[in-house]
Amino acid sequence: MARGRFITLEGGEGAGKSTQLRLLAEALRGAGVPVVTTREPGGSPGAEEIRALLVTGKPGRWQPLTEALLLNAARHQHIAETVEPALAAGTWVLCDRYADSTFAYQGAGHGLDPGVLRTLHAIATGGLTPDLTFVFDIDPAVGLTRAASRRGTEDRYEQMDLAFHGRLRDAYLALARSEPARCLLVDSSRSVEAIQSDLRAALRDRLGLPL
Amino acid sequence: MARGRFITLEGGEGAGKSTQLRLLAEALRGAGVPVVTTREPGGSPGAEEIRALLVTGKPGRWQPLTEALLLNAARHQHIAETVEPALAAGTWVLCDRYADSTFAYQGAGHGLDPGVLRTLHAIATGGLTPDLTFVFDIDPAVGLTRAASRRGTEDRYEQMDLAFHGRLRDAYLALARSEPARCLLVDSSRSVEAIQSDLRAALRDRLGLPL
Repeated sequence: MARGRFITLEGGEGAGKSTQLRLLAEALRGAGVPVVTTREPGGSPGAEEIRALLVTGKPGRWQPLTEALLLNAARHQHIAETVEPALAAGTWVLCDRYADSTFAYQGAGHGLDPGVLRTLHAIATGGLTPDLTFVFDIDPAVGLTRAASRRGTEDRYEQMDLAFHGRLRDAYLALARSEPARCLLVDSSRSVEAIQSDLRAALRDRLGLPL
Repeated sequence: MARGRFITLEGGEGAGKSTQLRLLAEALRGAGVPVVTTREPGGSPGAEEIRALLVTGKPGRWQPLTEALLLNAARHQHIAETVEPALAAGTWVLCDRYADSTFAYQGAGHGLDPGVLRTLHAIATGGLTPDLTFVFDIDPAVGLTRAASRRGTEDRYEQMDLAFHGRLRDAYLALARSEPARCLLVDSSRSVEAIQSDLRAALRDRLGLPL
């Protein structure tokens, strides 16, 4: 049986990733591709408990390095319990955020040493890299306004200042430029339909799916 | 102002560390030494929340590497919020468990690669090493019986099998042999008074305190 493909959606707050992920899963299922949708931090019972520590509460409750260690703990658990079993069974995995978020939020956002983040990434993931990553670009001021209208208590990162979110955007743009074979930059200011059309085209052109 | 000293108590479950730590703190205060007592995992508000994930629930709820990442997350937070500020202010820190427990439980106990654990340790602690470590030795069968009589829901590690606890004991004995300048092996089968007398003698002889 062919191993499943691992597809991640990345970008700042309020970029519309969740909506696009849901529509993309529907399209894949329509094409007969088995899919699981998941998210980080979280995506397995234990990892969701770690998520609760990260996304709620005051912005300054954790040291940046504590956050990076917690995120890698959740990621390791998520890979072991959810992602790897699915891929091994031939199921495709669509994941809302993965390791690129840690390099953006804890690296560019909080200023942690990228070398330390790379070391933790290698330890926690064994080098598991997405086959395709959609990088959603949005003006942070627009994205934060969108996000504020829908979230409940999971607003810890949204509370960080606009300069923080500006650094995230720059980091995501740099990622898309530096890894074009894996990443596709998505302009999130357009309609849901226009964006979804681009995502399906990428799955068709890059992964050979009849979408 | 002289920096405080960092003293840790290590060993298997039910070895009597907590009682000895309390008595040792009283002795230090009696000698005019400012002291904070703390514990791992935990010891600061955020780190205590991570502790709750680790010490409760089923033995198999976490991947061993997830545990190691969570422990190092809690440790980094504990050092930043509790240990380092105290030491910098000239206060001595008595800590119930520290990094040696991670090498014993996750390394010897669960079989994680010691090199990975050393890398995580260096990242999370910046190399912070105790000035003195008391290594409490106890027959695991005796210690687990003692521990079972007093604990509430914090029994996740106690539920691990006797072979696991036997590996812990061997690891702690090896630690005491390999780092005699930092570590003192304590025979926990003796009376509370006899053990406390040994600990005070070590503080007198090794750290120059009038105890």
